[in-house]
Amino acid sequence: MNIENIDVSSYPNSEKIYVDGTLPGVRVAMRKIHQYPTVKIENGKRVEYPNEDITVYDTSGVYTDPDVNVDINKGLPRMREFWIENRNDTEILPDITSLYGRERRDNQDLDPIRFPVAHRPRKAKEGHRVTQMHYARKGIVTPEMEYVAIRENLDNRERGIDTYITPEFVRDEIAAGRAIIAANINHPEAEPMIIGSKFSCKLNTNIGNSALSSGIEEEVAKAVWSCYWGGDTLMDLSTGDNIHETREWIIRNCPVPMGTVPIYQALEKVNGDVGRLTWEIYRDTLIEQCEQGVDYFTIHAGVLKEHASLVSERLTGCVSRGGSIMTQWCVLHDQESFLYTHFDEICEILNKYDVAVSLGDGMRPGSIHDANDRAQFLELEVLGRLTEIAWEHDVQVLIEGPGHVPMQKIAANMDKQRIVCHEAPFYTLGPLTTDIAPAYDHITSAIGAAIISSLGTSMICYVTPKEHLSLPDLNDVRDGVIAYKIAAHAADLCKGFPGAQVRDDALSKARYEFRWKDQFNLSLDPEKAKKYYLDSRRNAPDADDRFCTMCGPNFCAMRISQNIADECKQ
Amino acid sequence: MNIENIDVSSYPNSEKIYVDGTLPGVRVAMRKIHQYPTVKIENGKRVEYPNEDITVYDTSGVYTDPDVNVDINKGLPRMREFWIENRNDTEILPDITSLYGRERRDNQDLDPIRFPVAHRPRKAKEGHRVTQMHYARKGIVTPEMEYVAIRENLDNRERGIDTYITPEFVRDEIAAGRAIIAANINHPEAEPMIIGSKFSCKLNTNIGNSALSSGIEEEVAKAVWSCYWGGDTLMDLSTGDNIHETREWIIRNCPVPMGTVPIYQALEKVNGDVGRLTWEIYRDTLIEQCEQGVDYFTIHAGVLKEHASLVSERLTGCVSRGGSIMTQWCVLHDQESFLYTHFDEICEILNKYDVAVSLGDGMRPGSIHDANDRAQFLELEVLGRLTEIAWEHDVQVLIEGPGHVPMQKIAANMDKQRIVCHEAPFYTLGPLTTDIAPAYDHITSAIGAAIISSLGTSMICYVTPKEHLSLPDLNDVRDGVIAYKIAAHAADLCKGFPGAQVRDDALSKARYEFRWKDQFNLSLDPEKAKKYYLDSRRNAPDADDRFCTMCGPNFCAMRISQNIADECKQ
Repeated sequence: MNIENIDVSSYPNSEKIYVDGTLPGVRVAMRKIHQYPTVKIENGKRVEYPNEDITVYDTSGVYTDPDVNVDINKGLPRMREFWIENRNDTEILPDITSLYGRERRDNQDLDPIRFPVAHRPRKAKEGHRVTQMHYARKGIVTPEMEYVAIRENLDNRERGIDTYITPEFVRDEIAAGRAIIAANINHPEAEPMIIGSKFSCKLNTNIGNSALSSGIEEEVAKAVWSCYWGGDTLMDLSTGDNIHETREWIIRNCPVPMGTVPIYQALEKVNGDVGRLTWEIYRDTLIEQCEQGVDYFTIHAGVLKEHASLVSERLTGCVSRGGSIMTQWCVLHDQESFLYTHFDEICEILNKYDVAVSLGDGMRPGSIHDANDRAQFLELEVLGRLTEIAWEHDVQVLIEGPGHVPMQKIAANMDKQRIVCHEAPFYTLGPLTTDIAPAYDHITSAIGAAIISSLGTSMICYVTPKEHLSLPDLNDVRDGVIAYKIAAHAADLCKGFPGAQVRDDALSKARYEFRWKDQFNLSLDPEKAKKYYLDSRRNAPDADDRFCTMCGPNFCAMRISQNIADECKQ
Repeated sequence: MNIENIDVSSYPNSEKIYVDGTLPGVRVAMRKIHQYPTVKIENGKRVEYPNEDITVYDTSGVYTDPDVNVDINKGLPRMREFWIENRNDTEILPDITSLYGRERRDNQDLDPIRFPVAHRPRKAKEGHRVTQMHYARKGIVTPEMEYVAIRENLDNRERGIDTYITPEFVRDEIAAGRAIIAANINHPEAEPMIIGSKFSCKLNTNIGNSALSSGIEEEVAKAVWSCYWGGDTLMDLSTGDNIHETREWIIRNCPVPMGTVPIYQALEKVNGDVGRLTWEIYRDTLIEQCEQGVDYFTIHAGVLKEHASLVSERLTGCVSRGGSIMTQWCVLHDQESFLYTHFDEICEILNKYDVAVSLGDGMRPGSIHDANDRAQFLELEVLGRLTEIAWEHDVQVLIEGPGHVPMQKIAANMDKQRIVCHEAPFYTLGPLTTDIAPAYDHITSAIGAAIISSLGTSMICYVTPKEHLSLPDLNDVRDGVIAYKIAAHAADLCKGFPGAQVRDDALSKARYEFRWKDQFNLSLDPEKAKKYYLDSRRNAPDADDRFCTMCGPNFCAMRISQNIADECKQ
């Protein structure tokens, strides 16, 4: 097991910094980008004006901390463990609860692919709920809440940027269900982050193997890669072999919250035979994953038997895997979905580990034709009712949405979700704004994602160029993440998120002053920006020229502008 | 001169068709995509249900007509020549009018790079105006108008899709200035197309060399390539050597309207010394290009002396090359811009050849910081006054806009433009919705372009991944065009443009039925979609499988959906 093929050692001219909070152990990782000075010639003399450091949100974990020697075979530091222990409402279990989990542990054939360090699962003590929502409702500001408040602010306050984001504000948003901190007590390696419409827009990446491709090593590499480029959360959607072991490797090395769709693994346990799925198998899978440390579960509990017939009215049926599985289960058994009928029990499991529920949109439209149809919106209403139930159990909730939705139908999704789901954070795939561009669906969907997040969606799930065609590789993950960083940031600017424009202004100033290196370093993908520039300058590789090959020296508008400014002064 | 490196011979499973109009010689090129049948097993027997052909807008010219043998050294067929002659209001000139044009012609050193066939320029007869606007205002439906009406409709009527687009409607929109057909009488090779908010959204690509890179061959290749992928118009922004000869090669081989920014060449004529620019040099350049066949000129006549001081208030000054040149000229000479003071005279030149004016936005914001500022909106008001003047001369008008604009400030641009420019078609660069993603600005800007065109912008100017970094190469042109085809199509869907959704529905149906080849063939980039699919199926390269590697066989939601549909029926 190694990730030698990925260089995530550092960002150019950047420094990993930690900002201390007031609560013990709160030490928030950020990245500070240093800039070169602005050089001017004044009265024949060279004068340097320093440019301020720019601090940016950092999802890369200790992988980019030169002081930490990460060993994938040991896992990341367990930073949250101290806070969790301190609350004194959990206990280390004497054994794994899940039957399947024990079976995997005891199977010696799996030793070669097993994560070397055994994780000892933790659970709430009898009679306790250990969710961030539970604490928030009691008025407690947890270290996690202080952590995200500092993280969202970056250095706004130092810059004198006025902002509403305090630890108490975070607490109140979580208590109201308008934001969540997905933070399983069994995933102490993750750095807390918040998902809610009043915070910066987050992005999720999907990784995971299928029966046809990709092994554990590759999936761990994708996870690290995703965090490096800016993925805020990560879903392991594996459906192939060794899901349990793959997940363990990822969680132990994952600095961001990780989600799964437990029905996938449950279905693998019955060899893909939907008819043989049972509540008992599903329940054991939930517990197995809760104890490994999954931070949020996509649960398609809104797919009801009565909606099954709507699928056949659609152009593209049901394109959610979980949704199609549950619909088929309902039809085969002529029974209501066990996810729906057992939803209370599910919540009582989740609040023992603080796993958030991401209510899946099984009726997500798979084509422009099917957008905003009855199947989709009836399910959304069910999700609203399930939200109320989850909140009764102090379980944190996300609501999943969109898919393929043309631009004029996007706002209705956000409006309806906000109303029927009582402002629980919306988490949408794209939406893709047209069906006609396979191989470019990171773009069809970045358009929709920017729009829907500007309207209040809290987290957007990336789509890679390979969507509809095949599993993404590392390059696709990078392309997908950057496209979604763009959408999320465009939305933050649009919403006037405090401090969002600082980075744009710094980069534009660097651009205007021909500080090429700063322009690269401040960008979302310094490596590619620099490469594009230098490739065209192979014969004159001085990155300090006051023009680029796009216009050449005579036609650089920015250079002429500076002359104008000088001439106006004279 | 050859374009061997570009395969533009055909689209997969497509047929070039021509739809006849009622006026002589109106024969509208379109592309018909054939589909494979849907195969079902019914009562144990294989039954085939045919799928209808899908007709799509085709900008590729005769390059994709197997019946036409294109020879780049001879140029394209001159399809519009007959219509122009028929109107009997123009004449072939005895000689080139432009002094510079004559000089180039007589310079034997240029023979090796000269386009082999001399174009004999045509001009309106004394006392005539020959613009499409002039004809429209007289109530005449020209062949060009009938051509675009048919072209916009594709096969809507055959499908029973109700649409307002008739030749008379086209005429009325042009007469009112709400749409233009850019069609210089000296570019009879171009296939007519219409730009206006009630028609399908168009996209422009920029090509052209700079002093640092790229030769004639490469620029011709880029032009053909741009048309092949879907560019509706093309601007040659060359600023390097041999601009005149490069342009001739491009025009003679260009099946779409071509635009330029004449001030670039004028500046080259004075060796880049802005102080030496004069109205006389500029005027000669206009005439030189009118007689070569340029279809629209970007003219930064809205940049006024009084606005020069606003440039120095900005974070990124003036990022329009033409705008910065004219601002500097005003400052150096302490005079009003000659483009503004001579605007009537310019219009009187343009209406002799039917060259449209694209009123340049010299104060386009180059950063989020500068968006919608005074400099930008004061200029827009000037453009509105210039529009009125151009229309007095029957000159067709486009208004150029955006640049870097955050999402929340986009609508104000469209609203203000519509009001102050009397609904003249808006033609915008992007806008880029954030500054922080150099190397991905095709995406930052596709978001803005989709939004602004959904609000009524008629044509969007592409941005390639190399924007801000270097000149685009062929791959960048392709990436930029596809990103903008997506934005334009998403906007057409949003506006409910007649028939726009036909292609989406067909592709989605193909996708749902696992007709992989049809899914590829119906997409904007069949080659890339197919490659992504097949690369992942190297060990089982059967493109008819009922799943892909993304989910594998057990987890294909669409396959499960079809089972559900079958089960519901039983």
